[in-house]
Amino acid sequence: MKVSPRASQARARELDNQDSLAPFADRFVVQEPHLIYLMGNSLGRLPRATVSRLATAIDQEWGRDLVRGWNAGWVAAPARLGDRLGQLLGAAAGQLVLGDSTSVNLYKLVLAALALRPDRHRIVTDELNFPSDLYVLQGCVRTLGGHHHLHLVPPDDDGISIDWQRLLEAIDERTALVTLSQVAFKTGYLYDVPAITSRAHDVGALVLWDLSHSAGVVPVELDRWGVDLAVGCTYKYLNGGPGSPALLYVRRDLHRTVQTPLQGWFGHRAPFEFDLKFQPAGDVTRFCVGTPAVLSLLALEPALDLLLEAGAAALHRKAQALTGFLLELFDTDLAPLGFELGTPRDPARRGAHISLRHPQAYRISRALAEEMNVLADFREPDYLRLGLSPLYTGFSHVWQAVDRIRQVVAERRYERYSEERVGVT
Amino acid sequence: MKVSPRASQARARELDNQDSLAPFADRFVVQEPHLIYLMGNSLGRLPRATVSRLATAIDQEWGRDLVRGWNAGWVAAPARLGDRLGQLLGAAAGQLVLGDSTSVNLYKLVLAALALRPDRHRIVTDELNFPSDLYVLQGCVRTLGGHHHLHLVPPDDDGISIDWQRLLEAIDERTALVTLSQVAFKTGYLYDVPAITSRAHDVGALVLWDLSHSAGVVPVELDRWGVDLAVGCTYKYLNGGPGSPALLYVRRDLHRTVQTPLQGWFGHRAPFEFDLKFQPAGDVTRFCVGTPAVLSLLALEPALDLLLEAGAAALHRKAQALTGFLLELFDTDLAPLGFELGTPRDPARRGAHISLRHPQAYRISRALAEEMNVLADFREPDYLRLGLSPLYTGFSHVWQAVDRIRQVVAERRYERYSEERVGVT
Repeated sequence: MKVSPRASQARARELDNQDSLAPFADRFVVQEPHLIYLMGNSLGRLPRATVSRLATAIDQEWGRDLVRGWNAGWVAAPARLGDRLGQLLGAAAGQLVLGDSTSVNLYKLVLAALALRPDRHRIVTDELNFPSDLYVLQGCVRTLGGHHHLHLVPPDDDGISIDWQRLLEAIDERTALVTLSQVAFKTGYLYDVPAITSRAHDVGALVLWDLSHSAGVVPVELDRWGVDLAVGCTYKYLNGGPGSPALLYVRRDLHRTVQTPLQGWFGHRAPFEFDLKFQPAGDVTRFCVGTPAVLSLLALEPALDLLLEAGAAALHRKAQALTGFLLELFDTDLAPLGFELGTPRDPARRGAHISLRHPQAYRISRALAEEMNVLADFREPDYLRLGLSPLYTGFSHVWQAVDRIRQVVAERRYERYSEERVGVT
Repeated sequence: MKVSPRASQARARELDNQDSLAPFADRFVVQEPHLIYLMGNSLGRLPRATVSRLATAIDQEWGRDLVRGWNAGWVAAPARLGDRLGQLLGAAAGQLVLGDSTSVNLYKLVLAALALRPDRHRIVTDELNFPSDLYVLQGCVRTLGGHHHLHLVPPDDDGISIDWQRLLEAIDERTALVTLSQVAFKTGYLYDVPAITSRAHDVGALVLWDLSHSAGVVPVELDRWGVDLAVGCTYKYLNGGPGSPALLYVRRDLHRTVQTPLQGWFGHRAPFEFDLKFQPAGDVTRFCVGTPAVLSLLALEPALDLLLEAGAAALHRKAQALTGFLLELFDTDLAPLGFELGTPRDPARRGAHISLRHPQAYRISRALAEEMNVLADFREPDYLRLGLSPLYTGFSHVWQAVDRIRQVVAERRYERYSEERVGVT
């Protein structure tokens, strides 16, 4: 059914009016009110409260308290903020910690997992996983002398979903570890974490989930699902700021036996006794390594406040509503212009970003940025990725974005832009 | 020769008046003007310019530019700032990069070095090295299956210097890597980097120096000395802020052959092509891993400006003058009160912190902090550590600190404080 633009715009307004999370948009800094920002899945917006939290961290904590800041709160921050993030991700206290980057945390946990399954040499992942995760895995295999086999499952024929049958078959009695991203970075495919975790456990393998593209927008129940290990970044839907510290989760049952390859003083049970021998902390903080990046860490707290105030269920409902509305508009306005959907249509199989495939996707993304005030990113070879962030993306933003994409294509505005790739995102 | 307190105080003023770096003190935030801060070797003070640099990073770069910040400067920052720091450390461009923590960087380079010497299994270090460095080494040995032997040279009989003979003997044809701190964290002993590097090279071993306690206060000539690898933190005398990113140096000759175990997208030669296979960058940036902690990274730039403006030679001269003056006062005022020197007296063998040993060192440090407005730290079992930071420590600060230490001991003020350790630093 064709819906008139005017009718769909009115519907966007109506959805905004009914949106219980709409007031959260005012809790973020917006310096260009007319910008439609659809890259919250890449770098989340700056919460207003973060500005003053950082001013305090800089002027009062570093500037005045100086080294006393460590006792006043910095030492405890990685575990304290980890516990708070755990509330959003279904992890009871003492299992989640913040620090380092997702890639570094992944390295720690992959080697930790492989050491727990010394007789197994297969690591299962897939081609939809984030490339840096694959690089880490390749590095882990080389570190351990090349005795492990990285089994890389290709996607389904559509290129956007997993090949469920091949993935399940790959997880066998030789498998030490299954590691995947809960939501695929390019296609937005949402994995069935409980089913895959359960399949891995049935054959005695461990699972490690990367939550980078899912935390804050889809249900995550680490404890309830029996997830062994998890990592993820905090600067996307969690709005922690550029390069904010990554999360690292280890299920409590494993704390007694799991070891970290990256042993540093912040993972020691008593760092300031300056023992010559490493003695790991009793809980997940053994995976801390060097001195934490305090400023980037503290910036995360006001962002966590907002997420917990909104609540995981509401965040998921809003993300579903936003992506659902975008798909309606896609069908009526964009499919006729040569776009194909690069994300699963099934709400149970998608996260909060929608990828639209188009042969001119790169040039369209340039035109959107340069003359339409829409920031959406491009991923090779033909993906235009639209990230919808429940705390500050409104339904009218979605409507306006689709309307401008429609104009760029219908009026062939993209033709003014070169195919030559500029910059990095 | 006994000098009257009045005469030594006048001399402190005279030294301040002659100090060409004295004006730099005003370039730092000082919120408690009466505080004598002698922990710049633990956490450097906040440069005034950093406050506005961070405000720009937060409000304009994150808040307004959002994800466009990556192209506008964030992606290039680790190498660009690394090159600038390289100017202070005698490293030509393209060999030094900033990121992660010292411990994580050490792990990368230790495994990288061991892979370059596959037939050798000895790693030489010593007991004066920073404990986290030893933990990292122990973790590297375990990661590689326990085939390597960590040879830990004990200190000389005085407990504060290296045992030169035993260290040289330990570096033999079985040795893959020699890794030490240029200045020892507790005793302030300054190693002869060229001599040890040369000895290691004579037997075919590689060297890896940790510059955490030396960068910014003693001469460092990475290229000229033929150092292979180096790491170090940037929040001590470099004033980068709590947990600012660590440095990592790899000599250019090694770039063709050296590999990192921690392979991540920021070390890929083209991160944003999202290849499935890791292909390392051609230079030192291959040792970058995940998304850099941008706020903590950018905070470092104004600090580097100050250091480069002052110049490495002037920083070293001032550090020598400060420690020399402190030693004079130690001899006249503190040695008679039961203090022993925990740092080499030879200017060629000391950095910019002086450790004073006293049976009541812990309680003295508490009394200094609680009632004398002097922050100096304690290290087990009996070290009172005084860090003198060339950019903002004045000779009068040194005089006042010694005078207050003298009072605390002469008047037995420390007796009001318990031996029970409180807090972490």
